[in-house]
Amino acid sequence: MGAFKMRGAAAAITNMIEEQLKRGVVTHSSGNFAQAVALSAKLLGVKAFIVMPENAPAVKKAAVKGYGGEITICESTLEARQAAAEKIMTEHGATFVHPSNELEVILGNATSAMELLEEQVELDYIVTPVGGGGLIAGAALAANYFGKNCKAIAAEPANVDDAFRSLISGKIESNDNINTIADGLRTNLGDINFPIIQKYVDQIIRVEEQEILAAMRLIWERMKIVVEASSATTLAAVLKSKDLFVGKKVGLILSGGNVDLGKLSF
Amino acid sequence: MGAFKMRGAAAAITNMIEEQLKRGVVTHSSGNFAQAVALSAKLLGVKAFIVMPENAPAVKKAAVKGYGGEITICESTLEARQAAAEKIMTEHGATFVHPSNELEVILGNATSAMELLEEQVELDYIVTPVGGGGLIAGAALAANYFGKNCKAIAAEPANVDDAFRSLISGKIESNDNINTIADGLRTNLGDINFPIIQKYVDQIIRVEEQEILAAMRLIWERMKIVVEASSATTLAAVLKSKDLFVGKKVGLILSGGNVDLGKLSF
Repeated sequence: MGAFKMRGAAAAITNMIEEQLKRGVVTHSSGNFAQAVALSAKLLGVKAFIVMPENAPAVKKAAVKGYGGEITICESTLEARQAAAEKIMTEHGATFVHPSNELEVILGNATSAMELLEEQVELDYIVTPVGGGGLIAGAALAANYFGKNCKAIAAEPANVDDAFRSLISGKIESNDNINTIADGLRTNLGDINFPIIQKYVDQIIRVEEQEILAAMRLIWERMKIVVEASSATTLAAVLKSKDLFVGKKVGLILSGGNVDLGKLSF
Repeated sequence: MGAFKMRGAAAAITNMIEEQLKRGVVTHSSGNFAQAVALSAKLLGVKAFIVMPENAPAVKKAAVKGYGGEITICESTLEARQAAAEKIMTEHGATFVHPSNELEVILGNATSAMELLEEQVELDYIVTPVGGGGLIAGAALAANYFGKNCKAIAAEPANVDDAFRSLISGKIESNDNINTIADGLRTNLGDINFPIIQKYVDQIIRVEEQEILAAMRLIWERMKIVVEASSATTLAAVLKSKDLFVGKKVGLILSGGNVDLGKLSF
């Protein structure tokens, strides 16, 4: 379905026991993870309940439905989403899959960085975005276990720099506002991925909105890949920190192309 | 540089004799072929003179310059472009490289379809756009010589259906107007590629502007690839002619992502 979220969703569902698979899986998401769970479940013959906020774009609902997911619409607050998911867990016995704060999901995500290191064994750095923390935690584990002295670096919008502040304070921070074009990175770290990030992530580079947009445009124009702003933070971080990366072998995880083409900011 | 034109340009230049290489190469183009010649020449240590119309977008001029091409600006008529190229040929002894009507260029382009057939040996159809005719001629040769009963089909905007009409009339036709979003396909066939197209192309499917735009959007949204409208004509042709393609193995050559992101028509 075009994003790394597929790795985490597939890993989580394939590791469930028979009894769980019979009852189905549930998640709440408006973006890539909803599609990832729906498609993973479909491929494994498992029922997927997807809670989506009422303001989710029609194109995303259509994608989830196309992958066979059963959509439940709720209000667009985190509380309403959690309540709707819990209702489904109670009524159907479905197992909840969290998009970022679950070990199997983190390990599934880790395969992206592992495969990159299999192709480029000498990488000095792997850079991924940080939002909920599921990708950078996985990539950091892969860099540590499969890299030759490879460091994991996270890119984060300065406007929602909760992960950056969490590393400083030593506890999971949140954001007062979530005003960023990188809409996949508005979420906060979780209690399972945060200790991994504290232990294995080298540093977090914060990038400004214009830097994200410029990097996104550069990727579209020169690499001809449709990446969403959240993903372009990685290139923005590299372009911003040339002194750190000069002469180094740097791998970026570019993933996710959920862009509303009718509302481009270019 | 992100388009099949590189194959033709590189094939043409690598097949030149030492004496030609010393004097450099020249072409006139506002798009992908300009970049392809500049980059091919640079990689081979050859001087490239690129004639570009004065109304060529700054981003395309910058790309040519970035690849080391020496740009000559002229008026945006075909006559002015040819005159400027001829002046350079006279003054510098540079060899002209035509973007589509030259055998080496056609054979270079053919490698795209040949490589596709190496990966997918059982293809029933290969579909490419037709503009100047250099790609479809090459793909048709590859389908004939390397395919197992593989047919080459061209996709052409109905608004500029000169190639379609040429196959019917048996002579090279032109267009009264060139009003199409597929701006890479406004050119006419040439005397070298036309006989190849007559002999080896199975048919030409004409597509409407909205069909091109819808196919382009589908590729961007689901495959996450930035392709220009000219290239999306191939998918538009397949979606339009389901009866022909149903149950068949169909390969499309998607190539070229010269899109002005500030002026998207989505």
